[in-house]
Amino acid sequence: MAATRAPNELSAIEAAQRIASGELTCEALVRACLDRAEARESEVGAFSFLDPKLAIETARRMDQATGPRGPLHGLPVGVKDVLDTDDMPTGMGSPIYAGHRTRTDAAIVAKTRAAGGLVLGKTVTCEFAGAAPGGTRNPHDLSRTPGGSSSGSAAAVADFMAPLAFGTQTGGSMLRPASFCGIVGYKPTYGTFSRQGLKFAAENLDTIGLFGRTVEDVFYFADALLHRPYAPPAPLTRPRLGLCRTFLWEAKAQPEMRAALEAAARQAEKADAIVTEFDLPAGFADLSPARDIINDFERTRSMTWEWAHHREAISPQLTGAIESGLKISFETYAAALRRAETLRRELDVLLGDVDGLIAPCVNGEAPVGLHYTGDPALQGLWTILHVPTLALPAARGPSDMPLAIQIVAPRDSDRTLFALAAWLRDAAGVHLPQPHKGS
Amino acid sequence: MAATRAPNELSAIEAAQRIASGELTCEALVRACLDRAEARESEVGAFSFLDPKLAIETARRMDQATGPRGPLHGLPVGVKDVLDTDDMPTGMGSPIYAGHRTRTDAAIVAKTRAAGGLVLGKTVTCEFAGAAPGGTRNPHDLSRTPGGSSSGSAAAVADFMAPLAFGTQTGGSMLRPASFCGIVGYKPTYGTFSRQGLKFAAENLDTIGLFGRTVEDVFYFADALLHRPYAPPAPLTRPRLGLCRTFLWEAKAQPEMRAALEAAARQAEKADAIVTEFDLPAGFADLSPARDIINDFERTRSMTWEWAHHREAISPQLTGAIESGLKISFETYAAALRRAETLRRELDVLLGDVDGLIAPCVNGEAPVGLHYTGDPALQGLWTILHVPTLALPAARGPSDMPLAIQIVAPRDSDRTLFALAAWLRDAAGVHLPQPHKGS
Repeated sequence: MAATRAPNELSAIEAAQRIASGELTCEALVRACLDRAEARESEVGAFSFLDPKLAIETARRMDQATGPRGPLHGLPVGVKDVLDTDDMPTGMGSPIYAGHRTRTDAAIVAKTRAAGGLVLGKTVTCEFAGAAPGGTRNPHDLSRTPGGSSSGSAAAVADFMAPLAFGTQTGGSMLRPASFCGIVGYKPTYGTFSRQGLKFAAENLDTIGLFGRTVEDVFYFADALLHRPYAPPAPLTRPRLGLCRTFLWEAKAQPEMRAALEAAARQAEKADAIVTEFDLPAGFADLSPARDIINDFERTRSMTWEWAHHREAISPQLTGAIESGLKISFETYAAALRRAETLRRELDVLLGDVDGLIAPCVNGEAPVGLHYTGDPALQGLWTILHVPTLALPAARGPSDMPLAIQIVAPRDSDRTLFALAAWLRDAAGVHLPQPHKGS
Repeated sequence: MAATRAPNELSAIEAAQRIASGELTCEALVRACLDRAEARESEVGAFSFLDPKLAIETARRMDQATGPRGPLHGLPVGVKDVLDTDDMPTGMGSPIYAGHRTRTDAAIVAKTRAAGGLVLGKTVTCEFAGAAPGGTRNPHDLSRTPGGSSSGSAAAVADFMAPLAFGTQTGGSMLRPASFCGIVGYKPTYGTFSRQGLKFAAENLDTIGLFGRTVEDVFYFADALLHRPYAPPAPLTRPRLGLCRTFLWEAKAQPEMRAALEAAARQAEKADAIVTEFDLPAGFADLSPARDIINDFERTRSMTWEWAHHREAISPQLTGAIESGLKISFETYAAALRRAETLRRELDVLLGDVDGLIAPCVNGEAPVGLHYTGDPALQGLWTILHVPTLALPAARGPSDMPLAIQIVAPRDSDRTLFALAAWLRDAAGVHLPQPHKGS
């Protein structure tokens, strides 16, 4: 089966293995990705910058290179357009930065290249990684949003234009598009990757994360970026899983999301996991307002120059956030930071009884329309807690659109997150079913 | 007395008041600063970029401006050359960034301008805010270092070239130069100012701070940047002060530093403060190695692009730090981050019994020579704890060079830090004595 797949349909790990063994060239892989992009970009619109000539030249140079090869050798990577690249413009999804060139790569981009990765292009971001969409369409249904703000990265990976891509999450900008597009989105523990060369949305929330089509691919990518040899997921026996509906369950989770999460819990239990109800104490309801305060205050701060010089070019959505941020006093902001810090410590303790949590990832399927990328609340709750989270494609909604459950592990327990995701998929059978034919 | 001083010798608050009342023009103030720089720069070398024409034009525009005026209206501000400016190059103290231009201002620079401040020029930084000096001399003794890495900002303020300046502190880069140059250095609670547009040295340590010649000036500046009306220091009655020699006392603090701190404690007691010995528990000795791990790992990370492309242009000092950082595993780094977090929480509790601490600020006077900016250990201890600290000029050493004590307040208690500093100066008489004549 796998042998007949086009190179762009291979997982990152399969592609890396074939390149290492000489079965596949970097050029053939990048050409397959570019061919797919050429066929689909006019509809999907995942890239804000794509230079096929540059990509092919780079791939050829990689094929010819002698000397030691990094773990990402030749793997095409999409880079969200809020991360600097020294050879491509960085547009931030804003007319203010149209054609903007930076002298350097963001640290994480430089690290990708140092590990052999090939920066395929810049992917569409919502304006400044916020709420104003960039026009990307969901590859599963072009009438729907792919989610945001990492819209292009999620769509490119879902649509086989690249095996791997970078996103960032401040509210729900990684896990929501991953769920809407039916791929794996991994937001590591806050601070795992350097943010040098990232234009901040909100400094205390922004987390660089990874997209791939398999759980293994995103951790293979992460290990390469962290300079450690890739280790497959640890096998688990009777994992202890908290079923965490969250205090947003009633207000946010739609029937398909509730059904998907509850089915995953039942499947896990059947596969011998110890599944317990995990309720966040009442104080955790403070997280949503605290996140809003931190988000608005910090976005306003990091947009000081743009607000002073290009106010007219800022979207109504972001203008609203900035006007809200300008009304927040520094004391209110500092208090929200400390409240978040306290809740992080409380969660550290609460998570001592489980290996991890399963939680709703999104409200439901990707909404129809391109003007709104969806509600970040169910993802943003965990972003402010700085815990690692992963979107595991798990179900289909009433319109056959993909839907993920969210896996949550304690801070610094990203390896456990990986093991839980693989266990849920393999032992419990939690994975994305094929679309219903003829429905 | 004050009326006869040249405009560049006025405090920031005095200058702001005179500009507001029409006694002083922005142009006259900036010309006085530029005249001073012209007279002294060939010896002191505080600026990496200074364009008198641009500064005078800006001041004239400010004098002509109608409409509401910000609290910093017309005040010249020195900007450490690791912070982006949209009208001046940002050189990072490195040949790699010679003449480097950025599209935008750093957020804090944009905020300064939005509050009416005049960016006078870029001040010399050690290479990437690290250890390799940029050639600035101590204005009190040209054979000595001004400290680093915020060398130029401290020297410019001390030498009356600017009333205010920005620095950054990752180890001891604000408070050490403040002590060596005899001015006030204020490192706020970690995260107080946005770091958008700052080239990171080490993301979990880097703190933007302020230099001025008076305690009031730095908090006047801070209040303007935080959009709140300036409030003078709260009057204190019987402040509770912990005398914290730290676990580095024996190894680091020289006789003049010990004498200065103990004299300050005696003076405070005489002025009716409740002074108690404050010993950090033994576990706090972990702070120094944790800071080294975080510093080296994060500096290495944020230098990924430069290391890949311009390794030969990196100083031996920074090369050493990067080579050390490359050997640190991600797990060791993450453990150091969590250890620091735990110690921060412990300190929060310990500081519940006092209003603040007085501690040694530096090992001793500014060392002779320009090849080494001094030991960051006594400042760096507090940087990793994220608490606000202030260098209060307090004494002179055996060579008549200035020496500060360090005041420490709990996180988010920056207003208490201000009140303690003013109290120590006014009620306890802790201030820099005039040089000994003829000694």
